[in-house]
Amino acid sequence: MNNFTYYVPTKVYFGKGQISHLVELKESGSKVLLVYGGGSIKKLGIYNTVMALLRKIGLNIYELPGIEPNPRIESVRKGVQLCKENKIDMVLAVGGGSVIDAAKVIAGGAVYGGDPWSLVIHPQYILKALPVYTVLTLSATGSEMNGNAVISDLKAHEKWGTYSPFFKPKMSICDPEYTYSVSAKQTASGTADIMSHTFENYFTTVPGGFLQEKFCESVLMTCIKYGPAALEDPKDYEARAALMWASSNAINGLLNAGTGVAWCVHPMEHELSAFYDITHGEGLAILTPHWMRFALNDDTVVKFANYGRNVWGIFGGDDYEVANAAIDRTAEFFTKELHIPGTLREVGIEDDKYFREMAAKAAAGSKGSFVPLTAEDVEGIYRAAL
Amino acid sequence: MNNFTYYVPTKVYFGKGQISHLVELKESGSKVLLVYGGGSIKKLGIYNTVMALLRKIGLNIYELPGIEPNPRIESVRKGVQLCKENKIDMVLAVGGGSVIDAAKVIAGGAVYGGDPWSLVIHPQYILKALPVYTVLTLSATGSEMNGNAVISDLKAHEKWGTYSPFFKPKMSICDPEYTYSVSAKQTASGTADIMSHTFENYFTTVPGGFLQEKFCESVLMTCIKYGPAALEDPKDYEARAALMWASSNAINGLLNAGTGVAWCVHPMEHELSAFYDITHGEGLAILTPHWMRFALNDDTVVKFANYGRNVWGIFGGDDYEVANAAIDRTAEFFTKELHIPGTLREVGIEDDKYFREMAAKAAAGSKGSFVPLTAEDVEGIYRAAL
Repeated sequence: MNNFTYYVPTKVYFGKGQISHLVELKESGSKVLLVYGGGSIKKLGIYNTVMALLRKIGLNIYELPGIEPNPRIESVRKGVQLCKENKIDMVLAVGGGSVIDAAKVIAGGAVYGGDPWSLVIHPQYILKALPVYTVLTLSATGSEMNGNAVISDLKAHEKWGTYSPFFKPKMSICDPEYTYSVSAKQTASGTADIMSHTFENYFTTVPGGFLQEKFCESVLMTCIKYGPAALEDPKDYEARAALMWASSNAINGLLNAGTGVAWCVHPMEHELSAFYDITHGEGLAILTPHWMRFALNDDTVVKFANYGRNVWGIFGGDDYEVANAAIDRTAEFFTKELHIPGTLREVGIEDDKYFREMAAKAAAGSKGSFVPLTAEDVEGIYRAAL
Repeated sequence: MNNFTYYVPTKVYFGKGQISHLVELKESGSKVLLVYGGGSIKKLGIYNTVMALLRKIGLNIYELPGIEPNPRIESVRKGVQLCKENKIDMVLAVGGGSVIDAAKVIAGGAVYGGDPWSLVIHPQYILKALPVYTVLTLSATGSEMNGNAVISDLKAHEKWGTYSPFFKPKMSICDPEYTYSVSAKQTASGTADIMSHTFENYFTTVPGGFLQEKFCESVLMTCIKYGPAALEDPKDYEARAALMWASSNAINGLLNAGTGVAWCVHPMEHELSAFYDITHGEGLAILTPHWMRFALNDDTVVKFANYGRNVWGIFGGDDYEVANAAIDRTAEFFTKELHIPGTLREVGIEDDKYFREMAAKAAAGSKGSFVPLTAEDVEGIYRAAL
């Protein structure tokens, strides 16, 4: 096991009606920037509830609606300007990971002299941030309980993740009922995202992480059980709650404490989203089985076989047989149980014209991979997934 | 799943050489009370390292050595007096759970007007505390990452747990190498304690905690794998690291988030320690299989069978057969693999003269139990374990 620092200061209020804890925002000042997305929170009544609570404690509320599914640097710049002009004290994100990610970089940009894109490209420039609060409405990115943020500059085909401990939310309200209305497509995509975060932690070359490996398998089995259940009945509270708590724990530092993290598929997907603006979780689900087939070799077969036995309950056969069966089951799960498209063509990527450029960037962004990934390897995976 | 608040603000520095982070204590003031036990930290050189680091940052150091294995209220009172007389700013515990527990109640008592025993009996009186820091030297109680403390008044045969969010350590240094010299008896006892914390969380009647159940199984499998390994080779870093990280996660809120916690065996053991001052983990290991046999019935058999299949890999047979085999394996593991005595007589409890009195207290302290426990039931379990 490697040395590690574990630090998750976010206070999570999880469950029905926990929104009432929003009154604790008064600890952080008198002016709040409310950041949200396309307006679904208005349709669902969450917006009115939030506004009523913020008014009750006498906060001055400034609003930044319209954060995009792959949040754009232009929106972040708007938020930063609002914060600076109005001397905002704190940022409240109400939405999914995109909204929370944008809110984090806004919170950093508000107390930074330069352009916020610098904070995306150079995490080391983030030396402080306004307090960030979140109300979660989509189980996927885990942004509600960590310091990560992914921002896109689509004009430049750039999508990068940044990180700061100062971005860790002070408080997150996680009410599974707020995800009842999440579409089947987004529920499936969110489940694939949770699983992908877990795979990135699970497939590590650092020895001694037995507990962490078991924790990863726990999250994967939870997604496999409750992803389809939430599709079957969108108002299944236990399914929505399980996915929500799994999403937070998949990427808050628990699964990779001491075992490193081998970001392999995420960097590849970020290029797909940057060039084609596709749904993140769908891109991950399409690429994952192809990456697994590429990564399976004599050094990794035991790990893949363990995955097959412990997560999918595949017994009988030698390690290679179990490993291959596990990869097949993974692909089938995404396409047949989560109903996610199985190829890049199905999500509108018709040809390979950007593959070389994307592959070069993805290979550069892949750090400490489970198996080394060259630009040629990534290009091959894109082609296999086409 | 029930509603819950998850809040683990402790910054954990885990691994070799992490002691260097002690310099961060300067954030909390200029006067520190250093609390420790019987002097093993001096023999191991940890004391000198700690003192050098504290001096390097210019802290005034006050010392309270001699904290007992079942920490006494008398020691806590001494610490509180030292804090009040010297206007101490923070408390640093260097030791195992007993030392950390004492440090917490000292930190609370230092800013409380009355006798600190009130804070043990009435957790609601704890409205603030000095910052608590820890350097862990024993993997067992998980006190390094939670707000719990157990203190004894042995003259009155009283041993009670208390809790406050203000007791959560600000920072914990967890270096597995500091546990290399822990004796076989204490290693085994600590492993049993971690497993017992996990059982208390695992055997719950709250539905919907699938992820939490899998997390519990993860911790149990880790103890089963690495407890014997640490006994076999006390300097097996991976084993010591796995047990240390398991101990923190077994009782920091992760395993019982949303699923309640059914304290059953701990209240029974606290009476054994309060009346006979035995080693906590040994008492737990002796009582656990008897409690399991008592708790096994038509309502609980599925849970016990899951335990057998998922943790012990027992297949074949119906639910009762698997459940009974799992309970037998649990008993065998404690006695044959951890070499813990299997009966109360073997730890010096020769007769049943206090059993009725102890049982009445234990039954009162058992809240939300997996199966209801009357005083008569507890007495029966004591007799079975004699």
